[in-house]
Amino acid sequence: MEQISKGLEDVNIKWTRLTSIDGEKGILKYGGYRVEDIISSGAQVEEIQYLFLYGELPNKKQLSDFQGKIQEGYSLPNYVVDAITNLPRESDSVALQMNAFAALAATKKFKWDKQTDRDVAATIIGNMAAITAAIYRHISGLKPLELEKSNSYARSFLKAAFGKEPSKAEVDAMNTALILYMDHEVPASTTAGLVVVSTLADIYTGIVGSLSALKGPLHGGAAEAAIAQFAQIGDPSKVQEWYNQNIATGKGRLMGFGHRVYKTYDPRAKIFKSIAVNLVKNNSEAEKMFKIAEKLEELGIANMSGKGIYPNTDYYSGIVYMSLGFPLKNNIYTALFALSRVTGWMAHFIEYVEEQHRLIRPRAVYVGPEERKFVPIDKR
Amino acid sequence: MEQISKGLEDVNIKWTRLTSIDGEKGILKYGGYRVEDIISSGAQVEEIQYLFLYGELPNKKQLSDFQGKIQEGYSLPNYVVDAITNLPRESDSVALQMNAFAALAATKKFKWDKQTDRDVAATIIGNMAAITAAIYRHISGLKPLELEKSNSYARSFLKAAFGKEPSKAEVDAMNTALILYMDHEVPASTTAGLVVVSTLADIYTGIVGSLSALKGPLHGGAAEAAIAQFAQIGDPSKVQEWYNQNIATGKGRLMGFGHRVYKTYDPRAKIFKSIAVNLVKNNSEAEKMFKIAEKLEELGIANMSGKGIYPNTDYYSGIVYMSLGFPLKNNIYTALFALSRVTGWMAHFIEYVEEQHRLIRPRAVYVGPEERKFVPIDKR
Repeated sequence: MEQISKGLEDVNIKWTRLTSIDGEKGILKYGGYRVEDIISSGAQVEEIQYLFLYGELPNKKQLSDFQGKIQEGYSLPNYVVDAITNLPRESDSVALQMNAFAALAATKKFKWDKQTDRDVAATIIGNMAAITAAIYRHISGLKPLELEKSNSYARSFLKAAFGKEPSKAEVDAMNTALILYMDHEVPASTTAGLVVVSTLADIYTGIVGSLSALKGPLHGGAAEAAIAQFAQIGDPSKVQEWYNQNIATGKGRLMGFGHRVYKTYDPRAKIFKSIAVNLVKNNSEAEKMFKIAEKLEELGIANMSGKGIYPNTDYYSGIVYMSLGFPLKNNIYTALFALSRVTGWMAHFIEYVEEQHRLIRPRAVYVGPEERKFVPIDKR
Repeated sequence: MEQISKGLEDVNIKWTRLTSIDGEKGILKYGGYRVEDIISSGAQVEEIQYLFLYGELPNKKQLSDFQGKIQEGYSLPNYVVDAITNLPRESDSVALQMNAFAALAATKKFKWDKQTDRDVAATIIGNMAAITAAIYRHISGLKPLELEKSNSYARSFLKAAFGKEPSKAEVDAMNTALILYMDHEVPASTTAGLVVVSTLADIYTGIVGSLSALKGPLHGGAAEAAIAQFAQIGDPSKVQEWYNQNIATGKGRLMGFGHRVYKTYDPRAKIFKSIAVNLVKNNSEAEKMFKIAEKLEELGIANMSGKGIYPNTDYYSGIVYMSLGFPLKNNIYTALFALSRVTGWMAHFIEYVEEQHRLIRPRAVYVGPEERKFVPIDKR
């Protein structure tokens, strides 16, 4: 049989100027800037969204113009809000994002064009905040609120989600989470969206493709799976016993550990942990999860780091989301991942369509029956 | 720079027992059966759907049981119908299919399981007929009708779409179109869905991923683009002049001609043409389109067959759909393509998840700036 590139491992699907990963050393850079430096310098998420779309950090005037375009996206057509609120409150949050973007894809005129792609992308960043806040409120039994235009995307989002002014610590944590999940080269979600836009489908439809892949438990579902595992353990005193029964025996997988690319500590996991350690103090449930996570991490590292298996970005992010007030239900943590990642998806789409476009059409190796003669049903 | 597999050309993403294509000789086989034999033997589309899911043709009892499972899918939850009818009547038909399947993905519990995957797939084949009929009626300003259970999927679909009994010739044409578009190995739509289900996302979400890619003008949009081109020419007497001005000059592309895999006449195009030639007699607009298409085909073949460029399956299919009464608007012809292809998508998903699963995660080659020091905005 001809060779199959299983999982497309080590197949290069495109080039990029966006994100570079050194999996051996645990270094992640956006456009040449280390994520640690970006976070420690107190950058706003809008600066990094701008970096992804334009290749350079903005000055104050550029940032303010860019924020204006994002804010244009805060108002959604009624039928987009309806596409969310008409579905049952038990719905999966990422599927609701898929509905909202499919509704936009159904109606918006869009043509790939270097002159306008980035403006549309900025507005979509605004749409995504409004959509995700509406989804959180819908699954919580609340009516969606319009987003308030402010000089902080993170603040506007949190305020519209919870209907109250967030603290500075909460805004900072949300801002950091939005930066950390913004891009990670070409995982399944980005790849799915690239396949979609390679057919010259519109940008909204590309996002639907990416959201579809993010929804899977092996991809975007990991943050939720990690914290669900902490919740299942239930108490820090039970970590060792749980580990012995479930992981040491080889029966289960340690969720939030291990990564196809990183063979050392994921730099994003370190930052999420450093935010969580303070933020959990206001939320006793999240604090318990954090204590469980820390103990479990010790055991995991002691036993698995020799094989290059370490905590990944999803290990502590769910605890941060829980501390902010988002409940562990309806896959909402994955939707918060998507809220951030939509910028990376669009930046990859733009690179691909504008500069390296080719229809994506791999092959399959046929291993089925040789030629057979068709026998009509009366003679079968 | 490391090598990039542009468009994943000649990269094998999986093995398959479903479809084999000999692009040089123009032979297409489903599970070893040539499409020409399948059509000339008068097979029902349900037999071929069964072949895709189970690997063998059904006997009468198996076919009848399978039809029963399909028919279970004819009733849709109200919120799925609402997900269609709440959107503007001007909506893109494939985006409406995306909405309907995203609504199912939001609410249905699904776990990949060899014992149940094929039953769910059969029900989805039924769902898809109900969804697509509802979409046609919605964009036509009509209220959706429930599908009648009958011993012909093609008939039940046409009756629910148009609200009247179709003729035998119409049922046969629809049945044939459903068979011809059922699968074509791993084009962009199948690939996008495979990326999605490689994350173990549910089957409904995989279909949303596939629909997203099908929506693009370089893929599923081609049937509509071909007939739109005939409509633009407007009259058989204008073909030569239009060809000289638009194609001979190299200004435009001849839509419905050329294929990444076929280097000779697409066997499906021959069959679509043979149906169209009779079916257009009842529809003067379609008849005009057919005359234009035939003339244009002669010119195209005379000038391009030397380069291996021939009519593909999309060249005549739009004329068949128009003859059946579907209007050239809202991308409905692409939605009819999806109605058929959903079976191929699901059969590929099942092969992949059950027997050859691996998360799809290619790489990108970084060509951006070297490491840069982050400068805070106040100093930019």
